[in-house]
Amino acid sequence: MPELRQNLATKQWVIIAAERAGRPQQFLEPYRPLTEEHPEHDPSCPFCPGNEELESEIVRVTIGEKWQVRVVYNKYPALHKEGERIRSFDGVHRRISGVGHHEVVIESPRHNLCPALDTPENLSVTLQTMQSRCRELTEDPRVEHIICFQNHGEHAGTSLLHPHSQIIALPVVPYEVRMRAEEARRYFDDTGVCVFCQMLHDELQAGERIIAENASFVAFVLYAALSPFHIWILPRRHEASFLHASPTELADLGEILRYVLRKLYYGLRDPDYNYVIRTAPLRDPSHEYLHWYVTVVPRVTRAAGFELGSGMFINTALPEDSAAFLRSVRDT
Amino acid sequence: MPELRQNLATKQWVIIAAERAGRPQQFLEPYRPLTEEHPEHDPSCPFCPGNEELESEIVRVTIGEKWQVRVVYNKYPALHKEGERIRSFDGVHRRISGVGHHEVVIESPRHNLCPALDTPENLSVTLQTMQSRCRELTEDPRVEHIICFQNHGEHAGTSLLHPHSQIIALPVVPYEVRMRAEEARRYFDDTGVCVFCQMLHDELQAGERIIAENASFVAFVLYAALSPFHIWILPRRHEASFLHASPTELADLGEILRYVLRKLYYGLRDPDYNYVIRTAPLRDPSHEYLHWYVTVVPRVTRAAGFELGSGMFINTALPEDSAAFLRSVRDT
Repeated sequence: MPELRQNLATKQWVIIAAERAGRPQQFLEPYRPLTEEHPEHDPSCPFCPGNEELESEIVRVTIGEKWQVRVVYNKYPALHKEGERIRSFDGVHRRISGVGHHEVVIESPRHNLCPALDTPENLSVTLQTMQSRCRELTEDPRVEHIICFQNHGEHAGTSLLHPHSQIIALPVVPYEVRMRAEEARRYFDDTGVCVFCQMLHDELQAGERIIAENASFVAFVLYAALSPFHIWILPRRHEASFLHASPTELADLGEILRYVLRKLYYGLRDPDYNYVIRTAPLRDPSHEYLHWYVTVVPRVTRAAGFELGSGMFINTALPEDSAAFLRSVRDT
Repeated sequence: MPELRQNLATKQWVIIAAERAGRPQQFLEPYRPLTEEHPEHDPSCPFCPGNEELESEIVRVTIGEKWQVRVVYNKYPALHKEGERIRSFDGVHRRISGVGHHEVVIESPRHNLCPALDTPENLSVTLQTMQSRCRELTEDPRVEHIICFQNHGEHAGTSLLHPHSQIIALPVVPYEVRMRAEEARRYFDDTGVCVFCQMLHDELQAGERIIAENASFVAFVLYAALSPFHIWILPRRHEASFLHASPTELADLGEILRYVLRKLYYGLRDPDYNYVIRTAPLRDPSHEYLHWYVTVVPRVTRAAGFELGSGMFINTALPEDSAAFLRSVRDT
């Protein structure tokens, strides 16, 4: 019999209908080794060394004479960095001028490097660079919320192979982010406990959905995973904002994120995926009830009319099976 | 400059970044005429005449000796129709047994019929059949909410070509549906007006996003369309539930839905799409602030990390342009 499960923090329901499908192997991608199919350097790639003039640079991290990570302005930004934030409300016409920031973090000079195969140190440098960009963007009084994310592969929404992630700084707190904060506040009101700390405690006790742990983080498949291998990487220390993560935590995040990405890479043959850093709205002082984390979503299924009409998902994999499968995968 | 727009009813923000892309023609699909590529009858299709024994039938609408529309149980149901609805709450483990209904409406005996090319009368019979199924499912006390939807094409989540739609009856009101009802109630509290009636009024006054009108419905591209050609078909008469639509309204809906689907078919060359009937939760007596409608979403773009992390979307088409383009398309 299928079962409906609810995420304790977000209150979203999901239908777990594992009998509709088979074993975790059903999600295996055809094998496609990036390093063999693509060159280490592509002269036509705007992110490759030699083309640094093509994109306007914001920050560069170097080792010796070579750059390791660069942050550039997105050439086709979703928001403009110049201009005033103007709200206007006239009947159905509710709008805000599209000001904000849209930056690209180029994670390596190497064109065909799959993030899963990066070194933990490099990944930590990327995360540190993201954090320092977020801190600087906070100085802009027009910015209310920041989303840091990576799209890997075409089904995850990118056509550029060169490893990169993106930062979008918004002039508004998205509705969904506000609702999640609201639910977390309600839980805190009722119990005096951060709902994410509670989930971490419960998941550690249950054990069966854990994929990895280190000194600062726990990675697990969600009890109410919206899709197969839907993963959260939660910091053990209660902290609302990614901007306040310590250098040690960022190093530990680089290590565990790489481990999780490698499990997906070797277990599912380099699936397309998105990861997102979910952090508190910038102007929200609610340190007691919010908790930042990273969510990783391999794009192995597709949302259809039911998902569109209900906001619910149908997950054809049992989260406990997904976790056991990932635990069993060798990460080399 | 891009612009953020908010949907008055759902409170969702979208980034309208039309300058990132080109004209509506950018979304054109490669031409693929269904009627030429596929046979009228496929002996291996479970929904084709001759295979009626394969799926367990619930209802059949006939003309003379032949059936026109059939409703069958989904062979791989997301929810089971037998069993007790049992809620259990134990820490992070919040669940409900997966009871409910999952039915398939086979819309025509003709295998290769694209719904856009169906007759308005046939489409109305499908809608009437859906409504009568929903009314019957309401009798099941375990059911709290019903989603009726169609997935057309692979990107919209279906692999079966034969024209069909689905009905899923849930033992719970989805979180998103509850939040939308909550927002509508707030608007009603503040203004004494149904927010959907207000949107209809404002859209008719603005005119620039209207695609079609008839005696009972208005079809328009949303001011805050989440993706290109994101359309609502709103009944003029204030009514919370699809289950209470009149026979005349269902006939008019068949006519306007077909017109909208034909505009997409001829304008964008048979794009994949989903449509969903959004109706009030069954046990919600709130007739004053809720309003049923149909939403149509052509799947011409893809959600990525930003959408996942924010719940917001980036629409690269100006809704006014999308509407003007669809108005200009000949529907034959």
